[in-house]
Amino acid sequence: MHSTENMAARSLRAAILAGVMLASVLGMSSAAAQELRDIRPSDSPLVLKSRGSFFVGGEQVEKTAIELGSLGPDDRITINQMYVEYMVPEGAAKASVVMVHGATLSGKTYDTTPDGRMGWYEYFVRKSHPVYVVDQIGRARSGFDQSAFNNVRAGLTLPDQQPNLLRLADRFGSWTNFRIGPQPGKAFPETQFPVEAADKLSKQSVPDLLGASRAQNPNWKALSDLALHLNGAVLLTHSQSGPYPLESAIINAKGIRGIVMVEPGTCNAKAHTDDEIAILAKTPMFILFGDYLSSPTGLPGPSWEERFNDCKALKKRIDAAKGDMRLLATAEAGIRGNSHMMMMDRNNLQIADLILAWIDEKVDR
Amino acid sequence: MHSTENMAARSLRAAILAGVMLASVLGMSSAAAQELRDIRPSDSPLVLKSRGSFFVGGEQVEKTAIELGSLGPDDRITINQMYVEYMVPEGAAKASVVMVHGATLSGKTYDTTPDGRMGWYEYFVRKSHPVYVVDQIGRARSGFDQSAFNNVRAGLTLPDQQPNLLRLADRFGSWTNFRIGPQPGKAFPETQFPVEAADKLSKQSVPDLLGASRAQNPNWKALSDLALHLNGAVLLTHSQSGPYPLESAIINAKGIRGIVMVEPGTCNAKAHTDDEIAILAKTPMFILFGDYLSSPTGLPGPSWEERFNDCKALKKRIDAAKGDMRLLATAEAGIRGNSHMMMMDRNNLQIADLILAWIDEKVDR
Repeated sequence: MHSTENMAARSLRAAILAGVMLASVLGMSSAAAQELRDIRPSDSPLVLKSRGSFFVGGEQVEKTAIELGSLGPDDRITINQMYVEYMVPEGAAKASVVMVHGATLSGKTYDTTPDGRMGWYEYFVRKSHPVYVVDQIGRARSGFDQSAFNNVRAGLTLPDQQPNLLRLADRFGSWTNFRIGPQPGKAFPETQFPVEAADKLSKQSVPDLLGASRAQNPNWKALSDLALHLNGAVLLTHSQSGPYPLESAIINAKGIRGIVMVEPGTCNAKAHTDDEIAILAKTPMFILFGDYLSSPTGLPGPSWEERFNDCKALKKRIDAAKGDMRLLATAEAGIRGNSHMMMMDRNNLQIADLILAWIDEKVDR
Repeated sequence: MHSTENMAARSLRAAILAGVMLASVLGMSSAAAQELRDIRPSDSPLVLKSRGSFFVGGEQVEKTAIELGSLGPDDRITINQMYVEYMVPEGAAKASVVMVHGATLSGKTYDTTPDGRMGWYEYFVRKSHPVYVVDQIGRARSGFDQSAFNNVRAGLTLPDQQPNLLRLADRFGSWTNFRIGPQPGKAFPETQFPVEAADKLSKQSVPDLLGASRAQNPNWKALSDLALHLNGAVLLTHSQSGPYPLESAIINAKGIRGIVMVEPGTCNAKAHTDDEIAILAKTPMFILFGDYLSSPTGLPGPSWEERFNDCKALKKRIDAAKGDMRLLATAEAGIRGNSHMMMMDRNNLQIADLILAWIDEKVDR
């Protein structure tokens, strides 16, 4: 079990970390048509056995008319459900992969890149994996519980009791924190991020209830449940959601066939008990970082190098428990220029191939 | 390229695999798995020329650190962008269709139904239409401007200046207002709504900034722009978004090849000038209502019958201006039992066929 102190420290660390958003060197991006016009057509058709969307979990709760927005009488809504969209490729399928985005973003993270190239969602499907992309509970199509906001509006609770709505922004949230460049508007010479589309990354940002106090992040159990319902899945997470699969596995590891953490905001190396580490050591894990880890983030909180070192410390504990964890900074493997948003970088399919090869070896074989 | 033979073999394989998948899915017994377990496999593969997502519009605005959620310094974000996901079928395409959801919902409205059947999004694609599904600006993956909330939280503005976050709820918002039944929990004997999945409709609801004052709804121009960027599209809207295409056409009708309004919340019959009516009369329009229009909504505001009559009044003005508007209540056409959410009703594909036939006749011919 996690102590209250651990939870609080974890929430704070998580709040400081994740990242989201955008950049814009280009100033006024003129034609609004750019976004559509940028889309690059596929070379070959995509053949799907099935596709669609559904929800995981959710609790029915009673709300007052004020909490609901004062349209009608007191009534019941559902909260804490997780939206999931999926594509299953035609033909024999490899392991299912669940993709989870970072702070103040949505499942859009894994779809078409800001400059119009194929994202990991479609690419993994084309590589024979059924893929399930979620919106984290607390934002986007998963929604959030608006009650606390409407109660403040009505004067029933005090403003300082209202949850914080986090939004990461262009210059510091993206350019420096996402390591597109050493300072806002200035890219690293070797950056793989499609710098000309940085202002389109900005559009992917949504308000995020990260700051709302909650005893346990409801995404942890939802992901554990989803993996179970899929009869086994690899959880692939990013940034804020990076450490979620660790918690999901501690709740119930049965459905979790593998864990891929892309630039996790934290590895919580010291937060877990030895018993928890013993559980985690049973699932193969792959943690992937990009380049320029020591570059200043421009935000409070740890550097990406410190986060990488935290994951090193976790690997040490997992190794000691005879687990199977791979930790890689792409620059160490001779791949230069990757940002925090490597699913959008120009070499995003090269990075995907690293992950696909690992899944082939550790899960599908 | 795939030969026809390959495609046929593939279809057969898909049908067999689908059966296997269904059997395996039905084997699961966890109650929480319902949402996934309900999904009905496709009879044949879906072959897409392309798919993906992008944004329309958006403005870059400067925000204070407090407005951003106090993680970093003052910075810039993008607001008022519209998220769009799309699928383009392989083969010769008919008219593009843009689908827009109603209040406190998202683009999920048009995807897999609450009881796991194919939604209009995929069905229209299978009927050779490229389809573009949006999240309205102000919710879901399009996000919203969180500044006013964070300023209230910080004590910089008064609580009553905070926007209202509307949420439609189960008993009155759905059962009576959506005309599943005459009172909460009691279905009409002939209802087409999948009553056993009513609780899953509840999960689609997200907070909606409807109550925020704005001089002009930013969705109007975004839809006009999107139709233009697509080099022509039919705008298909529902409920709250029902009347949006009228405003989009008045802004710029050039890209709007047809308008389909499914149970519009209003037709604003008296709101438009004669000059505006003359503009609207140039675009073919189809307005569709369901059954039980006089049943009490359980909420303040007009009944659905009054809304239908408002659309009748608009049709009178459009007819007088020599326009082409069809107005149909499905019950009048001998189709009984349709609710407000007819894209989710059991006969949702029958209703879709009515719309597809109209598009064939008025737009594609």
